[in-house]
Amino acid sequence: MAKLWGGRFSKKTNPLVEEFTKSIQFDKKLAAYDCAGSIAHARMLGKCKIIPKKDAVKIVSGLNSILNQIKKGSFKVDNSVEDIHTAIQNALDKKIGKSSGMLHTARSRNDQVSLDTRMYCKEEINSILALLAGLKASIKGFSKKNIDVIVPGFTHLQNAQPVLLSHQMLAYCQMLGRDIDRLNDCKKRVDVLPLGSCAISGTSLPIDRNFVAKELGFSKISSNSMDAVSDRDFVIEIIASLAIIGMHLSRLSEDLIIWNSQVFGFLDIGDEYSTGSSMMPQKKNPDVLELIRGKCGTLYGSLVEVMTMMKGLPLTYNRDMQLDKEPLFKSVETVRCSLKILIAMFKCLKVNKEKASELLNDEAIYATDIMEYLVKKGVPLKESHDIVGKIVAYGLQRKLKLSEISLREYRFFSPKFNKDAYELLDAKKSVSLKNSFGGTSFKQVRRQLENA
Amino acid sequence: MAKLWGGRFSKKTNPLVEEFTKSIQFDKKLAAYDCAGSIAHARMLGKCKIIPKKDAVKIVSGLNSILNQIKKGSFKVDNSVEDIHTAIQNALDKKIGKSSGMLHTARSRNDQVSLDTRMYCKEEINSILALLAGLKASIKGFSKKNIDVIVPGFTHLQNAQPVLLSHQMLAYCQMLGRDIDRLNDCKKRVDVLPLGSCAISGTSLPIDRNFVAKELGFSKISSNSMDAVSDRDFVIEIIASLAIIGMHLSRLSEDLIIWNSQVFGFLDIGDEYSTGSSMMPQKKNPDVLELIRGKCGTLYGSLVEVMTMMKGLPLTYNRDMQLDKEPLFKSVETVRCSLKILIAMFKCLKVNKEKASELLNDEAIYATDIMEYLVKKGVPLKESHDIVGKIVAYGLQRKLKLSEISLREYRFFSPKFNKDAYELLDAKKSVSLKNSFGGTSFKQVRRQLENA
Amino acid sequence: MAKLWGGRFSKKTNPLVEEFTKSIQFDKKLAAYDCAGSIAHARMLGKCKIIPKKDAVKIVSGLNSILNQIKKGSFKVDNSVEDIHTAIQNALDKKIGKSSGMLHTARSRNDQVSLDTRMYCKEEINSILALLAGLKASIKGFSKKNIDVIVPGFTHLQNAQPVLLSHQMLAYCQMLGRDIDRLNDCKKRVDVLPLGSCAISGTSLPIDRNFVAKELGFSKISSNSMDAVSDRDFVIEIIASLAIIGMHLSRLSEDLIIWNSQVFGFLDIGDEYSTGSSMMPQKKNPDVLELIRGKCGTLYGSLVEVMTMMKGLPLTYNRDMQLDKEPLFKSVETVRCSLKILIAMFKCLKVNKEKASELLNDEAIYATDIMEYLVKKGVPLKESHDIVGKIVAYGLQRKLKLSEISLREYRFFSPKFNKDAYELLDAKKSVSLKNSFGGTSFKQVRRQLENA
Amino acid sequence: MAKLWGGRFSKKTNPLVEEFTKSIQFDKKLAAYDCAGSIAHARMLGKCKIIPKKDAVKIVSGLNSILNQIKKGSFKVDNSVEDIHTAIQNALDKKIGKSSGMLHTARSRNDQVSLDTRMYCKEEINSILALLAGLKASIKGFSKKNIDVIVPGFTHLQNAQPVLLSHQMLAYCQMLGRDIDRLNDCKKRVDVLPLGSCAISGTSLPIDRNFVAKELGFSKISSNSMDAVSDRDFVIEIIASLAIIGMHLSRLSEDLIIWNSQVFGFLDIGDEYSTGSSMMPQKKNPDVLELIRGKCGTLYGSLVEVMTMMKGLPLTYNRDMQLDKEPLFKSVETVRCSLKILIAMFKCLKVNKEKASELLNDEAIYATDIMEYLVKKGVPLKESHDIVGKIVAYGLQRKLKLSEISLREYRFFSPKFNKDAYELLDAKKSVSLKNSFGGTSFKQVRRQLENA
Repeated sequence: MAKLWGGRFSKKTNPLVEEFTKSIQFDKKLAAYDCAGSIAHARMLGKCKIIPKKDAVKIVSGLNSILNQIKKGSFKVDNSVEDIHTAIQNALDKKIGKSSGMLHTARSRNDQVSLDTRMYCKEEINSILALLAGLKASIKGFSKKNIDVIVPGFTHLQNAQPVLLSHQMLAYCQMLGRDIDRLNDCKKRVDVLPLGSCAISGTSLPIDRNFVAKELGFSKISSNSMDAVSDRDFVIEIIASLAIIGMHLSRLSEDLIIWNSQVFGFLDIGDEYSTGSSMMPQKKNPDVLELIRGKCGTLYGSLVEVMTMMKGLPLTYNRDMQLDKEPLFKSVETVRCSLKILIAMFKCLKVNKEKASELLNDEAIYATDIMEYLVKKGVPLKESHDIVGKIVAYGLQRKLKLSEISLREYRFFSPKFNKDAYELLDAKKSVSLKNSFGGTSFKQVRRQLENA
Repeated sequence: MAKLWGGRFSKKTNPLVEEFTKSIQFDKKLAAYDCAGSIAHARMLGKCKIIPKKDAVKIVSGLNSILNQIKKGSFKVDNSVEDIHTAIQNALDKKIGKSSGMLHTARSRNDQVSLDTRMYCKEEINSILALLAGLKASIKGFSKKNIDVIVPGFTHLQNAQPVLLSHQMLAYCQMLGRDIDRLNDCKKRVDVLPLGSCAISGTSLPIDRNFVAKELGFSKISSNSMDAVSDRDFVIEIIASLAIIGMHLSRLSEDLIIWNSQVFGFLDIGDEYSTGSSMMPQKKNPDVLELIRGKCGTLYGSLVEVMTMMKGLPLTYNRDMQLDKEPLFKSVETVRCSLKILIAMFKCLKVNKEKASELLNDEAIYATDIMEYLVKKGVPLKESHDIVGKIVAYGLQRKLKLSEISLREYRFFSPKFNKDAYELLDAKKSVSLKNSFGGTSFKQVRRQLENA
Repeated sequence: MAKLWGGRFSKKTNPLVEEFTKSIQFDKKLAAYDCAGSIAHARMLGKCKIIPKKDAVKIVSGLNSILNQIKKGSFKVDNSVEDIHTAIQNALDKKIGKSSGMLHTARSRNDQVSLDTRMYCKEEINSILALLAGLKASIKGFSKKNIDVIVPGFTHLQNAQPVLLSHQMLAYCQMLGRDIDRLNDCKKRVDVLPLGSCAISGTSLPIDRNFVAKELGFSKISSNSMDAVSDRDFVIEIIASLAIIGMHLSRLSEDLIIWNSQVFGFLDIGDEYSTGSSMMPQKKNPDVLELIRGKCGTLYGSLVEVMTMMKGLPLTYNRDMQLDKEPLFKSVETVRCSLKILIAMFKCLKVNKEKASELLNDEAIYATDIMEYLVKKGVPLKESHDIVGKIVAYGLQRKLKLSEISLREYRFFSPKFNKDAYELLDAKKSVSLKNSFGGTSFKQVRRQLENA
Repeated sequence: MAKLWGGRFSKKTNPLVEEFTKSIQFDKKLAAYDCAGSIAHARMLGKCKIIPKKDAVKIVSGLNSILNQIKKGSFKVDNSVEDIHTAIQNALDKKIGKSSGMLHTARSRNDQVSLDTRMYCKEEINSILALLAGLKASIKGFSKKNIDVIVPGFTHLQNAQPVLLSHQMLAYCQMLGRDIDRLNDCKKRVDVLPLGSCAISGTSLPIDRNFVAKELGFSKISSNSMDAVSDRDFVIEIIASLAIIGMHLSRLSEDLIIWNSQVFGFLDIGDEYSTGSSMMPQKKNPDVLELIRGKCGTLYGSLVEVMTMMKGLPLTYNRDMQLDKEPLFKSVETVRCSLKILIAMFKCLKVNKEKASELLNDEAIYATDIMEYLVKKGVPLKESHDIVGKIVAYGLQRKLKLSEISLREYRFFSPKFNKDAYELLDAKKSVSLKNSFGGTSFKQVRRQLENA
């Protein structure tokens, strides 16, 4: 097991230590980025005459062949070495012999691992951005298909006002839209080349960092070597953004789980997306949604993990920082899987309109419409609120729905009431009236669908 | 104690419940924003003829007088009411009588509290941005003053390479710079007007949300009413950004605490910024820095608090969301106080140069310079690393510093060594050589100082 | 503003620093404990002749008079001093003059604040234990009153099997029972006297720690002075226990919120425990329960706050540790308020039996009973599960309830079916059959009620 | 891929769903417990005549052979199935044919997985208890070997008072002792048999839960079926206890990292436990300790993960709960590895006494001794503190050590000073004097060593 260090040591590392400190079991995920980064670095070393041109060429060609293997899945990672950097260095040694010993010139693993992680992040942010857009599209498709479905909108899980189901679904598109914006902003801070910062202070060799940045498609290079090797802000910021996505998905899942319960019953997740019970033969459970909801914990936990690890670390690099990768990878994976399955699931969700309209039987849901009816007739809001509150109470005591209360009775509460008030006790009407910008009227919802 | 609701209730609220649910004890912080928001809302109601012009005028004038009281500190908040919205509504009732009952038209506390919180956030982000800039300036001043101080740079808290103290300090300016960028990005998502979303679904009244946005200086209005009343992303995003600031400050504090210890001793915090012990008369402790370090926990905790609260909540508004404010306020306050005191403290920090140069007596710190010396002479990096490692080990065994090893001995390890190698064993020289972009050379550090 | 230190300082503390480091604004909560602790300490100093008897007497009497003031609420805390220890010392100075300067002999604030906090914790654990018992009793009362109510039991929020509502409620009593056990265990580790550890290393004065422990009712004294002054395990352990309580209450709230929704509707929280909406006149919201659910975040956040603060602190005392108190106090307060209001609320909860039995119309809920019917007739479980699953599917396709499927049809699936199978389609029967230990039968639930 | 359910479904599960919901990739860790649990369950079914004796015998023998395979490592886990319960059920099917279909009688995966997890926890708690005892022993060994080493004790990382290095190390033994107590308490709540609770409500079959508990060595059985299947308190409580251990180890690591730095330099971790740098040939870094410190984050993160997952879940079982296992396993593994390596490392730690005594040159460290000297001569503490503070300041101004200040000068500050005061300026003397219980005197430390 060759190492990237050792000359100064007089005793062999304890095998327990090698086992404990190694990162190869997870950082092999960075193999392709490590190769690509090294290729650019070697080109630069050659170009700047820090190493002989011909050695640079040999290194680049060796690394290219390793990169090909990685991409084809045929690169065998040696799990006995310390990390992926060592694994690739060793493979290169075998492939091209002595020249490979020049690759690590003007470089430390401190800046190298930061480079690899940033390259990984750039790619993964893009893949998650695509999935977020995919889920928006999937929800939009569902919303279009069910544009005419009206359900009770809830605050405090209590019937509030009738809303278009699509309006509620498009609320989630708004959240996903913000998630996209957040990740895009985050990307700006990931897109900074750390390589060339070396271990802590830069190098006395005449490197050309701009060349490397160009080769690797970075739009900025880091300005302070000590910051560059000990900065994990970008990891925290990504995980924080993913945690907010996880929170959004936990709320979406909660909504769907509730609607898919027998009691609410206006949503049907479908056999393909449900699972059964080993004891209760009738069960068809929304396990997928529950796992998505639960995985919010995985994301919050990962965020706490990295933030705790970074707390109070003196500058510059400390080995603690190696622990950023597992939570990062896990968070990315978690969000990716959840998005993927939701995209598919939304294509199969079915709505039980009958059950939906049953839930609208509770006419108290129109109380606000009646209140605004009075406001339009000049009754001050405060008074209107009070009047309608009393009418609701009156109905409850006599077990009368709002439509079962007579006009005479209404007029007892306010002389402003006319027959047209009864027209308000209709879900379609109620929804249509909410035509303020962002409201639940068909018009507003269609506008959202077009912009979403 | 007037309430904003009640008509529908037949029994009185249990006083325990009133005590338990009320938010007045902390949301009074939003008083001025609540007034300003209501003024814009009332103007709009008048302009759109939703309420009579003259009532709108009365309301606006009443609110303006309340706002004046708030600004002067003479507004007495009634701590017995539910929340600040109710407190101001009641004050308005007293001031202008019946017209005040029209203010709450086409509005719910759900969109109102979101508006107030967003206004608060916009202002506080700006105040923290100013403080971040202030700390950058303060650190820059310190760095300029101490531009010639060289200290050991550390990785793993082990001597690594000599660096300019100012280089390390400017690493923190980089972090603060990212903090500024992050908050600026965050502001875009705060700067969205929710008012007009009403309770959940918008309103049937002909409101003009763009008018309100303009009045209040919002550059966007929310697109989906259900999202608008149940969105707390902006709170989480701000607290997450503040938590990262807190993490940066915890690292800065750790560095300063270590340097200020008697053992490191190259930094002196000064009597004005230290505190003593009730038992040990000689003590001069860096309590301020320890508290800043510890308050990282306050920020992480606040983030977990709000994220947990939002997890799995069904749409739309749920009362849980009221619990966003205390952690938000506390986080803002915490970061503000920490920044303020650091700005002042940096002006008094003193450097003990003697102690600093003592720490540079460990000549092993020049090992990398010697390695790069060999690389420049054509020795491949891997070999150079090994050679120097062995020289270090040789010195340790014989208790020889690098300068005490003879040229003959050096040549035993590599024939490439010449007398000029000894010139490298000098901190100033070492630092000057690290002239790669972002390195610790005087030139690079001066560049940073100019750009910081 | 007298301080407990200062002789060694040549410059005055910056007022910003005094403001930033002070804890008086929250640690005044410890006033009574601080006095009581000092009284015991002074008695010991006198008894051991470390200070003259007559001075000890004077100190004790002065402190007793301060303690009286504190208990009566007439002690005016001077908010300009550093902490409560200073405030009380200053008050004592005023009261008894010079002798008071002897009180702090053989003591540091490091061990003093640990003592005060432990005394606070011991008392508060007891008060929370009483409230936990109170909530158990309140739930038990509710369960007794509603012993005959049957509701669908849920897994995955899907109808699972009929259960006694009281069985579900008694599940919460189990949780509360574990909470009680946990806090009792925790108390053992709180109940250790730290006083006498002094600043870090003990003292050269002949103190008698056992005497102090006896005076203050501690059953153990700490064994290592360096551990004693830097140990905050007990704070973390208490908050962790409270966080688990918070989690339990969040689940209880979620259950009640769902049942109290119009859609489920078999629970009625009552006007006294509900609140209304400023816009929707019909609303009666379970805000109290939502806040209890949300406050789970407050508790998790507090736990993260203290754990983060303690991470990586070198021994021994560091000022960071001062930040343990606010999250501790807040957690205790949060749990106390939530328990109190739940105890009261449970006395008013009403059950809507009609709605409950409506929800039992879904006969698929008896599938497991039918499966076990077959098992009793010798059909292997796996086969029975499959048979009943197919019967359920058969019914769904034909829109037949289980009671509407003919015996001939049943026999088509398995010849073991007899007429008595239909008797199983009855909630009372179903519940009665689950008589395994811990099951939902009336007998088992009554047993629980007796033991709870 | 056989499943434990399916009869009721008309469409096939989407493969994405199978992938997403499966737990086999991690719950295979429970294989042996699952077998053992099933063996006891099958014996009970036979004994109670719920299934024919001969089938029970066949099942038990089949499971025993699988259990053997598992123990020998020859059991091939089929990664394509849902979970370990299914994998073992399928293996049993293959081995014994039809009888295996009776095993799952009167059982659900809900109670089965809780059983398996509890069995895992019981075993792992014991293994960690042994390691905690091992680390205590290892630290004790180190402390004995270095009983005569005196170092500055720190508060606020500032020189406080001289202490025995072993005293500081034994502080960690105190922490580990509390960790042991906490885990033992926790074990009481783990040691409860959930099996027999079935899916949610128990069973109508005549099971004997006490028999199963006896077979499996559980000392209690759960009292409420709904609680039993949805309780994860024990998981949270264990992880919380492990998180506190992680916090302790992070502090220990921090101490050792600081002492092992070149600047402090009185500790030497040894080549076998250090690692090097790929760029800086002289480096010997304490990576192991940094990783242990950083893994505090892993533990805190895991705790937040499970707590978040459980927040607000309605009763009873929800699939979210499946997510308890990965953080549980990871936490156990993390603590186990950290303890193991520390046990080994402590046997190799070397102390540099020369460096230690150099650090004691700062005579201000004896200020407290001088203060107590005055107290013994009758000077009130407050006055003594002030006098010594002024002497320290006097020395600082004149750059005089305490031993360099003349007796005349001392007497200027207080006439109580005599020549014997100078005797106090000696580390051994200082340490010996701190003979209060728990203090740092040799006698007290020896007492601790005997009890540790």
